[in-house]
Amino acid sequence: MSGMYEDLKGPEIPEVLTKESILLLPIGAIEQHGPHLPLSVDHIIADETGRAVVEACGDEIDIWMLPTLSVSKSNEHNWSSGTISLGYQTLMAVLEDIGRSVAATPAKKLVLLNGHGGNTTMLSTALRELRLKYSLQTFLMHPSLPPAYGGESNEDELGMGIHGGRDETSVFMFLRPEHVDLEKANRRVPEKLAENTHVKFGGSVSFGWLSNDFHEDGYIGDPTGASSELGETLFHAAVASLSEAMKEVRDFDFGR
Amino acid sequence: MSGMYEDLKGPEIPEVLTKESILLLPIGAIEQHGPHLPLSVDHIIADETGRAVVEACGDEIDIWMLPTLSVSKSNEHNWSSGTISLGYQTLMAVLEDIGRSVAATPAKKLVLLNGHGGNTTMLSTALRELRLKYSLQTFLMHPSLPPAYGGESNEDELGMGIHGGRDETSVFMFLRPEHVDLEKANRRVPEKLAENTHVKFGGSVSFGWLSNDFHEDGYIGDPTGASSELGETLFHAAVASLSEAMKEVRDFDFGR
Amino acid sequence: MSGMYEDLKGPEIPEVLTKESILLLPIGAIEQHGPHLPLSVDHIIADETGRAVVEACGDEIDIWMLPTLSVSKSNEHNWSSGTISLGYQTLMAVLEDIGRSVAATPAKKLVLLNGHGGNTTMLSTALRELRLKYSLQTFLMHPSLPPAYGGESNEDELGMGIHGGRDETSVFMFLRPEHVDLEKANRRVPEKLAENTHVKFGGSVSFGWLSNDFHEDGYIGDPTGASSELGETLFHAAVASLSEAMKEVRDFDFGR
Amino acid sequence: MSGMYEDLKGPEIPEVLTKESILLLPIGAIEQHGPHLPLSVDHIIADETGRAVVEACGDEIDIWMLPTLSVSKSNEHNWSSGTISLGYQTLMAVLEDIGRSVAATPAKKLVLLNGHGGNTTMLSTALRELRLKYSLQTFLMHPSLPPAYGGESNEDELGMGIHGGRDETSVFMFLRPEHVDLEKANRRVPEKLAENTHVKFGGSVSFGWLSNDFHEDGYIGDPTGASSELGETLFHAAVASLSEAMKEVRDFDFGR
Amino acid sequence: MSGMYEDLKGPEIPEVLTKESILLLPIGAIEQHGPHLPLSVDHIIADETGRAVVEACGDEIDIWMLPTLSVSKSNEHNWSSGTISLGYQTLMAVLEDIGRSVAATPAKKLVLLNGHGGNTTMLSTALRELRLKYSLQTFLMHPSLPPAYGGESNEDELGMGIHGGRDETSVFMFLRPEHVDLEKANRRVPEKLAENTHVKFGGSVSFGWLSNDFHEDGYIGDPTGASSELGETLFHAAVASLSEAMKEVRDFDFGR
Amino acid sequence: MSGMYEDLKGPEIPEVLTKESILLLPIGAIEQHGPHLPLSVDHIIADETGRAVVEACGDEIDIWMLPTLSVSKSNEHNWSSGTISLGYQTLMAVLEDIGRSVAATPAKKLVLLNGHGGNTTMLSTALRELRLKYSLQTFLMHPSLPPAYGGESNEDELGMGIHGGRDETSVFMFLRPEHVDLEKANRRVPEKLAENTHVKFGGSVSFGWLSNDFHEDGYIGDPTGASSELGETLFHAAVASLSEAMKEVRDFDFGR
Repeated sequence: MSGMYEDLKGPEIPEVLTKESILLLPIGAIEQHGPHLPLSVDHIIADETGRAVVEACGDEIDIWMLPTLSVSKSNEHNWSSGTISLGYQTLMAVLEDIGRSVAATPAKKLVLLNGHGGNTTMLSTALRELRLKYSLQTFLMHPSLPPAYGGESNEDELGMGIHGGRDETSVFMFLRPEHVDLEKANRRVPEKLAENTHVKFGGSVSFGWLSNDFHEDGYIGDPTGASSELGETLFHAAVASLSEAMKEVRDFDFGR
Repeated sequence: MSGMYEDLKGPEIPEVLTKESILLLPIGAIEQHGPHLPLSVDHIIADETGRAVVEACGDEIDIWMLPTLSVSKSNEHNWSSGTISLGYQTLMAVLEDIGRSVAATPAKKLVLLNGHGGNTTMLSTALRELRLKYSLQTFLMHPSLPPAYGGESNEDELGMGIHGGRDETSVFMFLRPEHVDLEKANRRVPEKLAENTHVKFGGSVSFGWLSNDFHEDGYIGDPTGASSELGETLFHAAVASLSEAMKEVRDFDFGR
Repeated sequence: MSGMYEDLKGPEIPEVLTKESILLLPIGAIEQHGPHLPLSVDHIIADETGRAVVEACGDEIDIWMLPTLSVSKSNEHNWSSGTISLGYQTLMAVLEDIGRSVAATPAKKLVLLNGHGGNTTMLSTALRELRLKYSLQTFLMHPSLPPAYGGESNEDELGMGIHGGRDETSVFMFLRPEHVDLEKANRRVPEKLAENTHVKFGGSVSFGWLSNDFHEDGYIGDPTGASSELGETLFHAAVASLSEAMKEVRDFDFGR
Repeated sequence: MSGMYEDLKGPEIPEVLTKESILLLPIGAIEQHGPHLPLSVDHIIADETGRAVVEACGDEIDIWMLPTLSVSKSNEHNWSSGTISLGYQTLMAVLEDIGRSVAATPAKKLVLLNGHGGNTTMLSTALRELRLKYSLQTFLMHPSLPPAYGGESNEDELGMGIHGGRDETSVFMFLRPEHVDLEKANRRVPEKLAENTHVKFGGSVSFGWLSNDFHEDGYIGDPTGASSELGETLFHAAVASLSEAMKEVRDFDFGR
Repeated sequence: MSGMYEDLKGPEIPEVLTKESILLLPIGAIEQHGPHLPLSVDHIIADETGRAVVEACGDEIDIWMLPTLSVSKSNEHNWSSGTISLGYQTLMAVLEDIGRSVAATPAKKLVLLNGHGGNTTMLSTALRELRLKYSLQTFLMHPSLPPAYGGESNEDELGMGIHGGRDETSVFMFLRPEHVDLEKANRRVPEKLAENTHVKFGGSVSFGWLSNDFHEDGYIGDPTGASSELGETLFHAAVASLSEAMKEVRDFDFGR
Repeated sequence: MSGMYEDLKGPEIPEVLTKESILLLPIGAIEQHGPHLPLSVDHIIADETGRAVVEACGDEIDIWMLPTLSVSKSNEHNWSSGTISLGYQTLMAVLEDIGRSVAATPAKKLVLLNGHGGNTTMLSTALRELRLKYSLQTFLMHPSLPPAYGGESNEDELGMGIHGGRDETSVFMFLRPEHVDLEKANRRVPEKLAENTHVKFGGSVSFGWLSNDFHEDGYIGDPTGASSELGETLFHAAVASLSEAMKEVRDFDFGR
């Protein structure tokens, strides 16, 4: 049995959930994504992906989706009025409170589905904190891992379609076409950065950046080639991959 | 113009929002509501009420709804596995971060629409903090104020239908009938408490309580008389009243 | 047996106090109260009321008064040089430390007697925190509840004699006549605010305010009609009412 | 002009206080003091000394006494039910809030008059914090500095009359004879400790201790020789010395 | 000019450092590394690598090494007595304090050289915090990036020589041969984990782990093939690579 | 057996350490010391003294030195670019984390060897916190206690050679002659301060100060008479005295 966690009634929790149950927490963000995309992008993608994953593998896996966190740590966009950002301490406090609450249920596996790249390092830190404090098994997945945090990107963007770029724009066009204004988009690829061997997105040396460090428009990548069709393909591929990963989560026991 | 805040694009914020704009933040909760109601009650009611208010008065008033906070401070239900509760510090940290973010937009009025009575005192504290720190005008509304925090209640519940009681159950039956199991509900009114003159819900002396202090079932009130029809009436009355209040918010200037 | 808590000797604590004992903590404030009243108003009123309550009902009830907290959260008056204000976190930290200390004694009932309206919401939050963390039974009383926080007010002040108004000034004139300069007082009632249905003191919508939001003089109400005689009546009425309430506290058990 | 700070009215603050004004904050404690003394000892001594100092030198020096803090950091006595102790963070938060408030007045000199030895190191730390954050000139005085923190002690107690010993008991007998029960007192001097050259009270090596580390009675010294007469002498000597010191505070300018 | 930061005198700071200067902060750890390696491994490697990098490129680049932090966040090893671990908040507080201090010098580039994989995510978070709060350019390098955090590993360890494995052991044998006891080492590779496609070290799904989750010995990898010769090769390669990276840091300007 | 703590291997900790073992934590600082001394002074002196003490008494006493903390609370020098200062909360957090870690080993005695006077009060506070929270026996020693914190000073400096003065300069000349530039040093003794009876270094009234309150050069004392020979004498005397003290630590049991 699977579904939305919040639809359960209080007395059902100890009956329905077991230590095999997986709780899935999608994490969105409300932040500027350039002139072609709304503030909601990461929120919508995290939420829709979470629902699609439950849909796709909920029959085989006991998985319950928690309500999507709409806001998270977006301080690389603080310069842009409209962005709603939690401090890193606040995000961690929210996760610790959720972790403590989850640990009081029979479920012992918590999966964070992170829609916003800027959260990745803090969420990774949280994985260990929640394991240590509450003995949870904790996992971190991404609808699509941005290159700046270790994912891949299309060659045309030189590995730098990391915020409002081709793929993210495409997925959002598939999910919410009415909220995309592709005509306002331009190529915003920091070409010179790609010449570096070490200090670049995905390089051996990471660096602190704000989204307007590269260009005052604040998006990074080339959304001009985005399309709803590509978005559909990417979205379904992500759901399939995440569903497969969810089975590994179900069977996970630290290789023991 | 009005709508969902997250549908705005970054560069639209300084154009669309003005100092007259009202930002509306519904605040829900994920917490036990007895055997007849799901964990989602406060989350759904806050969210649906917020949307209905924007719908009802968005033409006359410049109002933008922020994504509903799904979880908040529910520690009176910590004893009940399934409840997801933020600490008071975490809730305040979230509100401070949101307030700081809002203050960076042109909008200067922030309305909290609180779906969970247990938040009321902390949110009231936040009103002043956000006014002081960020010079915002801040307001707190409730889809229906529970008696324990100053609202009214039907006589049959002796003023104590404060958690999963007749009115809340009715409203939820109207909004999500498929998630209510009224057959599991009983009368859970702490009759003896009503004999007090001072120390009671709505009395001159307030007191610290957990939801299982009165009865181990953890709901307080008498939901047996709930109905979808009553819920519909209450919901529409609330939306009408809140819309009226929103006009006062729009015109508010401390009586100056 | 009743009295001042601090007069007890260490080894007497486990002998004299029992789980029926009530510990009473008056909470004052040091803050501007307009040109006619000193900074001490809330401090003196809380302290004197606490002592009078112990005097009035100490024979019947086992009640021990802790030293009055002289300063608390007065940040609505931060604009006024002279005000000494604790942050909300500091106030809560003080209350948590006191709660933890009290919980180490045999006494299990802690009553906060709040002389300063601006503390009310934070103290209400503390009631639950201390109940949850330390299993104390916790209560909150007021020498007189200001309308902005749910109390009543005389009609002439339109329900807004909330800071330095007629009643508070009268009580202080009774307690410390030498420190009142009534000639400096004027009517400072935000008349226009009373026209609101929702957004007003005691209305369904609360709002964040600083004491100079209404008038730069920073007091709210009409103290011109204050008198020592009225103060005497109000003070004795409050003590009688609080003493009556204290009996309900003694017998309180959540209506079980 | 001098007096009690809280008796000033808000609008008087910028008129009465100047940058030469000294604000005096007595700091007490509520903590076990053995079977012969009540919990109030440090609270009473700090408060009475503060008042006596203002009385003694208030004509010559512009000095205003803030309400005495009744509770502070007494965690060396946490083992003893009845003690009310603030955490070191809470004490610092209180002092930072008071310092920030004081810095908003014209006064620039803040004197802490510490009645409880256990606060000394944290208060010393606060001196610098408040100077750095708020540009205050800050000072720390003691009604009598206990040997464990650098003061002197009578030979008979081997330099260890540091908590409830002869001198403190005597001063309290002078101030509140009705609350002393000298018959319950015994000699509680950790004689062996005095044999150390380095690791002892007042030695070159300080050490962490709780008041029951030496003896389960929790007082340290020999109060058996205490008398009200000695207390009177000590109290007046302290007031005279502090008044003299207050003149140096008035004239202080870092030796420039 | 380059060298050890601490050897500079106060008045030299504004003269010697410029906005081109790079400050290098090696970060070590004191934590269990299995029975064959001492607690010092990460401390020594970070410190020696830092010194070697300054040596290698200090003539060409203006680089000043801060004293190596000896302890950091090692809570995955908290189960093992001897480990000294800072909480994530403490580590961040230390870095914020250092960042604030560095920002007060003319230098604007701060490089963290991280010797302990367990710090990586928190340090990555710090990069952005320090950039945002103090406008520093911030960078993160590793003497060798462990596979669990995105680096490569030899095939024989199946990509899992991440703590006390072949490479780390070899480097330490080169640096401190007298403190390695290779006879106590065994193969501790969680083979089954390598069968996963997603949930594994370096996979698309990361997970929270403690070092004894895989095997109670607490090291992960196969140190049996370690040698001082391999260590020498690896160390020199790392220093060469880091020195090259340091030039990119010197020239870095966000691809502008 | 004695030595460097970090050279121990994880599994050795429960075998080598016992409840008699003393862990020694030297605490340095990186802060301005005038034009004649480098930032490293307190770091080097603490570290070298720690090593010399282990050398001197390690045969008789079971003593293990933890890696020296290089930075600590130096905020009296925040005005001077180059100083690296931890906030008092950060320093306490570091000490609490170390204390918690140490308490997990068999060792129960922790000695702080403090090279920087500005830490003294906070470290003294920590002694009690660590004793209370972790039941450790805690001690605080100084390579030489500065007069401002209770130590003695040569007469020529009027008891005020407290930062970069004759003795400290001499000791550093002995330890690192190549980093001292005595020609830049002048007499910087706040002579007028010595005329005070109460408010002065070592007087009955302590005061908050920053190192540039007395003179903009920021050092206090008269280093012009410093010499390597004097430093050698002082250093050896300190080591001898500390070694003697360490024996008292070994035998310490609160005089029981």
